[in-house]
Amino acid sequence: MNSNPENLVLDQLRQLVGAANVLVDGDLSSWEQDWRKRWRGKALAVVRPGSTQEVARVVKACAAAGVSIVPQGGNTGMVVGAVPDESGRQVVLSLRRLATIRDIDKANLTITVEAGCILQTVQDAAAQAGLLFPLSLAAEGSCTLGGNLATNAGGTQVVRYGNARELCLGLEVVTAQGEVWEGLSGLRKDNTGYDLRDLFIGSEGTLGIITAATLKLHPMPAARLTAWAAVPSLEDAVGLLGLAHKHLGAGLTGFEVMGQFALGLVVRHFPQLRVPLVNAAPYCVLLENADHESEAHARAQFERLLELALEEGHVIDAVIAENLTQAHQLWHIRESIPLAQAEEGLNIKHDISLPVSAIPEFCQVTDAELAVAIPGVRLVNFGHLGDGNLHYNVQAPLGTDAAAFLEQNEKRVNAIVFDSVRRYGGSISAEHGIGSLKVDQLPRYKSPIALDLMRAIKRSLDPNNIMNPGRVVRP
Amino acid sequence: MNSNPENLVLDQLRQLVGAANVLVDGDLSSWEQDWRKRWRGKALAVVRPGSTQEVARVVKACAAAGVSIVPQGGNTGMVVGAVPDESGRQVVLSLRRLATIRDIDKANLTITVEAGCILQTVQDAAAQAGLLFPLSLAAEGSCTLGGNLATNAGGTQVVRYGNARELCLGLEVVTAQGEVWEGLSGLRKDNTGYDLRDLFIGSEGTLGIITAATLKLHPMPAARLTAWAAVPSLEDAVGLLGLAHKHLGAGLTGFEVMGQFALGLVVRHFPQLRVPLVNAAPYCVLLENADHESEAHARAQFERLLELALEEGHVIDAVIAENLTQAHQLWHIRESIPLAQAEEGLNIKHDISLPVSAIPEFCQVTDAELAVAIPGVRLVNFGHLGDGNLHYNVQAPLGTDAAAFLEQNEKRVNAIVFDSVRRYGGSISAEHGIGSLKVDQLPRYKSPIALDLMRAIKRSLDPNNIMNPGRVVRP
Repeated sequence: MNSNPENLVLDQLRQLVGAANVLVDGDLSSWEQDWRKRWRGKALAVVRPGSTQEVARVVKACAAAGVSIVPQGGNTGMVVGAVPDESGRQVVLSLRRLATIRDIDKANLTITVEAGCILQTVQDAAAQAGLLFPLSLAAEGSCTLGGNLATNAGGTQVVRYGNARELCLGLEVVTAQGEVWEGLSGLRKDNTGYDLRDLFIGSEGTLGIITAATLKLHPMPAARLTAWAAVPSLEDAVGLLGLAHKHLGAGLTGFEVMGQFALGLVVRHFPQLRVPLVNAAPYCVLLENADHESEAHARAQFERLLELALEEGHVIDAVIAENLTQAHQLWHIRESIPLAQAEEGLNIKHDISLPVSAIPEFCQVTDAELAVAIPGVRLVNFGHLGDGNLHYNVQAPLGTDAAAFLEQNEKRVNAIVFDSVRRYGGSISAEHGIGSLKVDQLPRYKSPIALDLMRAIKRSLDPNNIMNPGRVVRP
Repeated sequence: MNSNPENLVLDQLRQLVGAANVLVDGDLSSWEQDWRKRWRGKALAVVRPGSTQEVARVVKACAAAGVSIVPQGGNTGMVVGAVPDESGRQVVLSLRRLATIRDIDKANLTITVEAGCILQTVQDAAAQAGLLFPLSLAAEGSCTLGGNLATNAGGTQVVRYGNARELCLGLEVVTAQGEVWEGLSGLRKDNTGYDLRDLFIGSEGTLGIITAATLKLHPMPAARLTAWAAVPSLEDAVGLLGLAHKHLGAGLTGFEVMGQFALGLVVRHFPQLRVPLVNAAPYCVLLENADHESEAHARAQFERLLELALEEGHVIDAVIAENLTQAHQLWHIRESIPLAQAEEGLNIKHDISLPVSAIPEFCQVTDAELAVAIPGVRLVNFGHLGDGNLHYNVQAPLGTDAAAFLEQNEKRVNAIVFDSVRRYGGSISAEHGIGSLKVDQLPRYKSPIALDLMRAIKRSLDPNNIMNPGRVVRP
């Protein structure tokens, strides 16, 4: 029997959560590899506690042994933040067994869920109660609420409902010391000290482990309608957004922009999808209007908005989905852009945000810089314009080898894009987070004072650096 | 010439901000006394820097001299958090001269303001741009945005627009080391590290000094209508709230509840105000509906809602204001409750929040406990029911001496109310904060783990405890 420190802690973990929930053998790739397959690490073990108290005991045991912990939910993150390093000395702590919906309080418009609940399960539970949990994103069938909160997930409904942060009222957290902060709360107002909730949200598991949350629910709209508009320019897309805010108010629940080249990739690779107005203009916009009165009212509002936008020249032509099937088809086109892009070949992805007002000029200037730097480069520009969030992706020139393009140009392209983002007051990570993928770039784009504050907080809450070390900020 | 350390720092401060902006003589009561006149301290000086850089230099000078700083905005706080202690060794740092509106970005729906801007000035600037800054509270004519953010102010529009926290996108902050964190940002999505913004918001000047902020604006509604409904019980008020959420959606911008006794005080002390339906039911509710289409549509929506509520028995009778004047009159009645209460005599004020669903039972149980403890006690119960926030105030029994009542019963009444709040998962300070008034009560009602986390953060960001010491949390 081997009595090295690693084996001792494994024995302890087996006692704490049961041997069946301490995985060390076999194929652990679904925990050790990130889903974009950009990184494969090696874990000491994958530990699957079954309760908050077990999470706390696992953290205490690891802390005592000096073993660091990588919390993991659905492992759908984009920035390599939830998989272990190559050392074979980190424990992956999977929250997936904490998957109970603890409570729905209809009068308070809240739901309390454990961290391992799948986002779609939470959406469904809310819908069964006649209410809406509006967080919605591509990975909703496999991502977990704990991960959504740890990364402050965004998605397609942010223009109305905010990010994951804005949807959370309270948290239960296991600290780096293995204590349980019972901060679950269904309160919309609570000014009793520092905002610990928002400190843990978006900290990507580097300060503690979110084990449960109380989330805001919203009333279920009576109808949701989708429209699709061809716009002559990004300036006009911004103009249309302003009109939509004014005339739909909080009815505006989605506002996505898609460049003609991005939509052209969908046409090329998924010819079965019929993309409306793709040849009509350089950009199309998808709008969603949620209405608490009726579908007829939603339609009348949409028609009025689009007529005004046509009059003002912000829109060239537009269609309103006649029914849910058509609405789903329009959303499906939008959601097929990343897949079409993958079919076209490897590319350099960005998840940037800017003040909405700066987006037209940013794109004009940055497009031009990239065209000079890499003749023939192709820009797959689309995103959540309502939130100022673009997926401003860069595809190799036609006929060139995509892998070689990436190899040669990724750093240079990132520098051009991120330097431009900084000049326009933007962010190099709008909704995906930092993880390990951007941790070394962050100091170039974040204020040194902010980084000092972050390091001070990290050192104070996790002085031994055992919580997801090397992610977000190096202490 | 006196060369004691205090005089040395005063000389330095005069050099930094000009002698005219270092007040030491004369009547300093408007800075040294809180506006409810519960506390009068003594400052070493009132310092009025004129720029963010001057604030930073003042902090550096004070830090070097070991002089602690009490940041102050409009000095309208409710919990004695912005006035100096009695030592005569603290500097009051007034932000009032930082009163520039730096920028309005209409397309991005943001406004960037300095900390000393008066809330109403910001509301007006937004309105002039055709937009809405929705934060609204009784002190809006004299409170400052910096104070609103430092205390995470609430007010009457939270049910739709959230607290001050939800209205802020970015901050400029002078740290306890006198560095300037330039965190102003008009971004709706930015996942590049820990949420420093929300850590400073609500920290009541104990971690740093907010000098400017970028705030969210909203589209200006086409119409706002106000209704007044008599409801048979708090259960029915909660039922009406659920109906209003469902049928008005985000149109519901205000939902205030007022007990019959509270309204009776208005009738008694301000007989010129005509209080509708005051004798019809134990509670009245004030609802506001903001509409992006038209006043006619808002009225139709309100009528439909109130008809449904009448059918379901949640409402006994209701009126909808015919015009803006009537709407203002209804709001004025609501806002006159605290004044009427003051006319009636001293009382014990609470600013509590609860899950909305728990409010009826909380009131029933707590009313009964207080009635047993203090026969004849009178409850002035009103507040922002839409946010679960009650001003559950306790007035002396009729005919008794109010001052003596307070003297004898304040602690006991607080203990009864706060213990009950805790049992129902509520907060002892919904929107007013902790300051020094509640700092010693907090440990009884806040999780010790949360307090440990708060202390760790305080020690890490302000290791010498110079920022508003003794407020919120003792390190």
